[in-house]
Amino acid sequence: MPIAELTAAERTAMMAGLPEWQLARDDKAIERTFEFADFSAAWGFMARVALLAEKADHHPEWFNVYNRVEITLTTHDAGGLSQRDADMATAIDRLL
Amino acid sequence: MPIAELTAAERTAMMAGLPEWQLARDDKAIERTFEFADFSAAWGFMARVALLAEKADHHPEWFNVYNRVEITLTTHDAGGLSQRDADMATAIDRLL
Repeated sequence: MPIAELTAAERTAMMAGLPEWQLARDDKAIERTFEFADFSAAWGFMARVALLAEKADHHPEWFNVYNRVEITLTTHDAGGLSQRDADMATAIDRLL
Repeated sequence: MPIAELTAAERTAMMAGLPEWQLARDDKAIERTFEFADFSAAWGFMARVALLAEKADHHPEWFNVYNRVEITLTTHDAGGLSQRDADMATAIDRLL
């Protein structure tokens, strides 16, 4: 069963629960930037996100330089944001 | 001692030895895109690059989505490309 794109109302409710994340790409994605003490700390965080992503089979688009990690979540199969992005963002936030 | 930016001649010699890499950002950086079978394989490669980077204290700017990894190398302290980028690119290529 294909995963459904969130409706505008569902998206608004999702964002209310994810105050650290921002809508991006015409509301088709969400993104958050994380800063750590150094590369080692950033990489440790990324390793934990990688495990979450692989377990959920829902992988981020992400960029890292030294202590900074930028994560973008979207659901290609849904053509935009889905519940999977909300769940992954919530799981990532819980790592901190 | 600050690390020196490569001269144009040194840059040309470096690129001759790194045929899979491309100059970027007005010749201030080099970049290469890698593709793997899946996220697990891409992540395994990234983990090895992370160890190289931490050991050399020379960290990439990099982007990953699923099986694709884009790596950009530059030396901020040199204001462009330095020998450290050549050494890191060579070390990364050796992982493959």
